[in-house]
Amino acid sequence: MTECIFCGIAAGEIPAQIVADDPEFLAFRDIAPKAPVHIVVIPRRHVASLAAAADLPEAVRARMPVFLAEVAELEGLGPTGYRVVTNHGPDSRQSVFHLHWHVLGGTLLSDAM
Amino acid sequence: MTECIFCGIAAGEIPAQIVADDPEFLAFRDIAPKAPVHIVVIPRRHVASLAAAADLPEAVRARMPVFLAEVAELEGLGPTGYRVVTNHGPDSRQSVFHLHWHVLGGTLLSDAM
Repeated sequence: MTECIFCGIAAGEIPAQIVADDPEFLAFRDIAPKAPVHIVVIPRRHVASLAAAADLPEAVRARMPVFLAEVAELEGLGPTGYRVVTNHGPDSRQSVFHLHWHVLGGTLLSDAM
Repeated sequence: MTECIFCGIAAGEIPAQIVADDPEFLAFRDIAPKAPVHIVVIPRRHVASLAAAADLPEAVRARMPVFLAEVAELEGLGPTGYRVVTNHGPDSRQSVFHLHWHVLGGTLLSDAM
């Protein structure tokens, strides 16, 4: 077993409700959803946060925003809208130290960000 | 004058407090900050939101996460942390229809997202 929970999900060692799968990315439902739709999107390769994004290959970085939009469309959020969030470090409340994006929608989202 | 306010800022027609500048991206202070540090990051090329990210050239998409992290570092947010957010459509409260990322930090951020 890997020590990183998201690497464990990417390796199929830790169960998750997968919603989209790609050679470089994985999308699965957050276990503690903060909105009616709350998907977590990760690159399969381990980097700790957005601060280390430069360590990902250029093609992976280029696919990232496209994959995020594809996941939101797949979840039917295109017409109603969605928020995409990533957290780095303590002030952001980052809790898993593998770069991940939250895709949130299905309700009017908070004005707080 | 362009009709898009962020295209206007990118063209230098509308004033903004620029914090980082790049051939493909621009970062400036939000005029209504929601955190002690609140930077808006835009690609200079107009696309309406993340939903249209595929319309950006691959090299621009690949630079996007790296530029976001660079801006956060420049603002001194690396050690304390930061949140990066983009909104698409009504449920997300998107208000300017030019793809933009909010980089937020300088305080413990909301748990709401």
